[in-house]
Amino acid sequence: MLGRRLAKRLLSNDELIGPSGNKEPLENLTLVDSYKSAESLPSDPRVVIINANICDNSVATKVIDDDVDTVFHFAAVVSGGAEADFNLGYQVNLSGARNVFEACRASTKVPRVVFTSSLAVYGGYRDIDDETPLTPQTSYGAQKAIGELMINDYSRKGFFDGRSLRLPTIVVRPGKPNRAASGFASSIIREPLQGDPINCPVTADTRMLVLSPRRAVQAFIDVHNADAHKLGLRRGVMMNGISPSIGEMIEALKEIAGNKVVDRISWNPDEEVQWMVDSWPWFANGNRGHSLGFKPDDSIHEVIQNFIDDELEGQVRN
Amino acid sequence: MLGRRLAKRLLSNDELIGPSGNKEPLENLTLVDSYKSAESLPSDPRVVIINANICDNSVATKVIDDDVDTVFHFAAVVSGGAEADFNLGYQVNLSGARNVFEACRASTKVPRVVFTSSLAVYGGYRDIDDETPLTPQTSYGAQKAIGELMINDYSRKGFFDGRSLRLPTIVVRPGKPNRAASGFASSIIREPLQGDPINCPVTADTRMLVLSPRRAVQAFIDVHNADAHKLGLRRGVMMNGISPSIGEMIEALKEIAGNKVVDRISWNPDEEVQWMVDSWPWFANGNRGHSLGFKPDDSIHEVIQNFIDDELEGQVRN
Repeated sequence: MLGRRLAKRLLSNDELIGPSGNKEPLENLTLVDSYKSAESLPSDPRVVIINANICDNSVATKVIDDDVDTVFHFAAVVSGGAEADFNLGYQVNLSGARNVFEACRASTKVPRVVFTSSLAVYGGYRDIDDETPLTPQTSYGAQKAIGELMINDYSRKGFFDGRSLRLPTIVVRPGKPNRAASGFASSIIREPLQGDPINCPVTADTRMLVLSPRRAVQAFIDVHNADAHKLGLRRGVMMNGISPSIGEMIEALKEIAGNKVVDRISWNPDEEVQWMVDSWPWFANGNRGHSLGFKPDDSIHEVIQNFIDDELEGQVRN
Repeated sequence: MLGRRLAKRLLSNDELIGPSGNKEPLENLTLVDSYKSAESLPSDPRVVIINANICDNSVATKVIDDDVDTVFHFAAVVSGGAEADFNLGYQVNLSGARNVFEACRASTKVPRVVFTSSLAVYGGYRDIDDETPLTPQTSYGAQKAIGELMINDYSRKGFFDGRSLRLPTIVVRPGKPNRAASGFASSIIREPLQGDPINCPVTADTRMLVLSPRRAVQAFIDVHNADAHKLGLRRGVMMNGISPSIGEMIEALKEIAGNKVVDRISWNPDEEVQWMVDSWPWFANGNRGHSLGFKPDDSIHEVIQNFIDDELEGQVRN
C-alpha cells in the first residue's frame, strides 16, 4: 500500500536526490510485487510492474541492474503473518531482504537503499527514544531489527547507501484488513465510516503510536534524501508518531462522524493481538527524526479527516 | 579453543543442568569442527569428534538429533576474518548459525542452546551496561547481534531454550594468533613469555575489556545453568570483564616476568586494528551478569599468572 502511494507521489513530482546530489527527474520506476495490487497506478511510460517474489534470488539481481540509483524495500510478511508462519517470516523478511541487499551490493553503482522497518523492533518499553535498545518481542520485530543491522553493515562497507525508517502503525490504511496485528487500528475507523461493523480486539486504554499514510510517504522521501553524514554509522531513524489511546481514537471518530458510526464497533478481546500490541511502545521522542525534519501528524482528528477526504471522497456512511 | 577447554571441563565434572532440572552425568559429547584442532582431548568413550562445516545444512541436522539436551555454538569467522571476507562472514556467522538453530528447532526435545556472542555487538560506547543499545561497527559484531536476535526469537517461540553469552576479548589465548582483530592482546603477553618478538599494533592508552579462558569456561557453564525465568525474553547476557590499558597489561607483564621479556614488544601501529578496537567498549557494568553470579577476573596480574601456570608449566623464557 505505502509502496503504491510513494510511487504515485514520485511520478508526479521530481523529489528524490540523485547521484548529482540534487533532486533529479525520475526516468524509470520499476515496481516488484509478489501479488497483484488492488490499487492501480496512473498509466505512465516510465513505469514497469513486475510480478515476482524476492525469495527467488534471481529476481532482485535481475531488477536491480547498474542503472538503479534508488531502491525502496517494502516487501514483508506482516506481524501477525510472521507470528503464524515462522518459516515464511524468516524466508521473506530475512532471506528475501538479504537477496535485495546482495543485489544492491552487486550493482556497480552505490544506490540509496531505503529499508522499511517498524517500531516493532522495540519491545518492553512504554517510552522510546534514539538510545532505546532494540529488543523485539515478535518474529516480525526481530526480522526488521536484523534487516536494520544488515543495512548498517552494508552501508558501513560502502556497498550501498542504506537507510532504515522505523515506522509506527500506519493509520488509516485503506482497503481490506491485512494480517498485521496492528490492522484493527485502521479497521475500527475505516469500517464504521464505510457502514460496516467491526470488532475492536484490545482495551480502550491501549495506546498505539500511529502515523498517517500521507506522513509516511513524506517520511520515505525525507529519509531517502537525508544527508548520509548526518546519519553516520546508524542508518536507522525512528519515525515519531502520535499516541492516541484506542478510546481517544474512537472519541475523535464520534466527533467527526457521529454516534451512529461508532456504534458499529463491538468489543471482543483477542489475547494474542492484545499481547502483541502491548509489547510495542506507546510514546516516541526521537531527536534524530525531529532534527532531520520528519513530521508526525498533528492530531488523530487530522488523521481521520484526511482519510475521509483522500479515500472516501469526503463521504461518511451514516 | 574455548570449545575444547569447555569440553575438557565437562568431561571431568558433571556440571550441566539437564532436563530433570538438576546436574546430570554427561553421557555423550559430540564435537563438530571444520578443521582439526591442534589441541587434543583426553581419550574418553563418551567423545565423538566430527570434522564438518555447519554451512552444509545437513551437518547440524545430523548431529543434533532427538537425544541432544545441550548445544554450545562456538563456530565463527572472527572479527578480522569477517571484515576481510564479507561473504564468508555472513555464510558462517549468519547462515551457519541459522542452520544450527533450525536443527535445534527440529529436535523433538527443547534443548538448551548457548550462543557465543561478543562485546563486538556494541559500537561507539566507552561504557556499557545492560541497557546499552547494540550498535555494532564491524561485520562480526553485526552477525553476532543478528544471532542474538534469533536466539531470543526462537526461545520466545519455545523452539529451544537459548542463551547468548557476550564475551569480552579472551586473554591470554594459547597457541598461534588467529584472525581476530583483538588477537594482539593475547600475543603481546604470550609471545614474549615464550621468547618470541611481537608487535603491538595499538597505542598504550587503548583499553580493552578482557576475560581469561578459565573464567570464560566457567561463564559458559553458568549461562547454560541459569534459570530461564531469570533471563526472561532477553536471552543475551553481557559478561563483565576487567579493563586494563595495553600499557597496564605490559606493566603487569614486566612485574611478573621482567624487563627482558617486555623488551620483545615492538610498537608499529596498524590503523585497521586500532579502528576496530576503538569501536569496542572499555568499561562494562552489567547487573544481569553480576546478579547471575558470573565472575570476571580479579586483575590482569592474575590473568597473566594463570596463563604461565596453565599453559607454560610455570616456565617463562628469560
